[in-house]
Amino acid sequence: MSGWLRVVGVGPAGPDWLTPETANTLQDATDLVGYGPYVDRVGTAGARRHVSDNREELDRARHALDLAREGGRVAVVSGGDPGVFAMAAAVMEALDADRDGRWSGVEVTVEPGVSAMQAAAARLGAPLGNDFCVLSLSDNLKPWSLVERRIRLAAEGDFAMAFYNPISKARPWQLGAALDVLRSVHAPDTPVMLATAVGRGESERVHVTTLADVSPADADMRTLVLVGASTTRVIERGGRRYVYTPRYYPEERA
Amino acid sequence: MSGWLRVVGVGPAGPDWLTPETANTLQDATDLVGYGPYVDRVGTAGARRHVSDNREELDRARHALDLAREGGRVAVVSGGDPGVFAMAAAVMEALDADRDGRWSGVEVTVEPGVSAMQAAAARLGAPLGNDFCVLSLSDNLKPWSLVERRIRLAAEGDFAMAFYNPISKARPWQLGAALDVLRSVHAPDTPVMLATAVGRGESERVHVTTLADVSPADADMRTLVLVGASTTRVIERGGRRYVYTPRYYPEERA
Repeated sequence: MSGWLRVVGVGPAGPDWLTPETANTLQDATDLVGYGPYVDRVGTAGARRHVSDNREELDRARHALDLAREGGRVAVVSGGDPGVFAMAAAVMEALDADRDGRWSGVEVTVEPGVSAMQAAAARLGAPLGNDFCVLSLSDNLKPWSLVERRIRLAAEGDFAMAFYNPISKARPWQLGAALDVLRSVHAPDTPVMLATAVGRGESERVHVTTLADVSPADADMRTLVLVGASTTRVIERGGRRYVYTPRYYPEERA
Repeated sequence: MSGWLRVVGVGPAGPDWLTPETANTLQDATDLVGYGPYVDRVGTAGARRHVSDNREELDRARHALDLAREGGRVAVVSGGDPGVFAMAAAVMEALDADRDGRWSGVEVTVEPGVSAMQAAAARLGAPLGNDFCVLSLSDNLKPWSLVERRIRLAAEGDFAMAFYNPISKARPWQLGAALDVLRSVHAPDTPVMLATAVGRGESERVHVTTLADVSPADADMRTLVLVGASTTRVIERGGRRYVYTPRYYPEERA
């Protein structure tokens, strides 16, 4: 008899942002499958752990489906929301390629979670308070020319933006190139926010700067980059800076 | 002595998607401020309730800040995530206009939540599994020409999209006009998904269709509209349709 597979997200950090739905799933699971650091964050006692490298997503999805086919109750564990640059798409890709119905008996569901951009935005105020675009700056699976084109069009549409995967040792120049595209469209004083390790105690850093002053060296693999629209405003208040994008948009600018 | 104000979101539906952080805030609050149906969803015993119409967001934010100034522990309650087309921006607007420091003693924080697009995407599989844009189709606070321009640019960038506030009695034609813009760029078989009242038991309806066939009459105020990119795929599986946008993007299409 086949078991089930649930694709879950444990939120950007800690148990405070883990939904009750997913906490229950993790308790019921016999098998936890995921990138090591995410699985390690989950404190369940009985389940078997199957950890793998972060770049082997499709193999991991197939392995999880096999475990469920053999009767396992399998939680595929992402950080954040599994539907935003995470494991839900990889599981769907595996199912899409399942021409011979190997996994047809497996019940597959996805559970929503809090994504990193939302935790970062909350810390800042409401930078994503109006229309916004969400992009991964990784060019591992898509051509860089597409990333640049999307950023340019999003800037021309005056969307606020959230960038996932801004920088890594293997991708050192992409964030700088993305900022150059933004500078070709937006004013130098456009707010740019670097939110690193949000929710992770003392390692959390939230930096509010501008398109003119931002330095890619201030970002790392744990950083979520937010970019304002032309309407985005910065408020100084009690030694802290809040950033928000108003709900209204002036008629004369449109 | 001033109290605090926390802008929270109770998720798209029910307690399963309410974060522990926000559940704690709602327990600690002396005052709950928000649109009636959202406040009603919260089952706290002791707090005073201050409900108002959904269109009076700035007045509601000012009222909440006044309650906190008088010492209240005030939760401003949104549906979904308070940072996505919800109350966080309205509270920031009120603070931005606070030139005389009326509310300078009030500690203001925002807590992230699960937004409607995420619950809708989870039900479908992974339609937002690659780069995507998020727009409100309401033209109450921004010119319709801007909405159309943003949709056109997002389509030219081949982003998947999520539309909030697609239709209401006061805004009956906007969704149809948005779909017409999409049709001028995208192929007729581009997947379009209408996800209505997700998480709300028997009233939940999730409809997978195409740009050619979608009818605005199938959407209502509780509907979240998702639009695929050119790479988005539909899988038929066990009488159910899953939709996902792959993580990869073919070089030759970019």
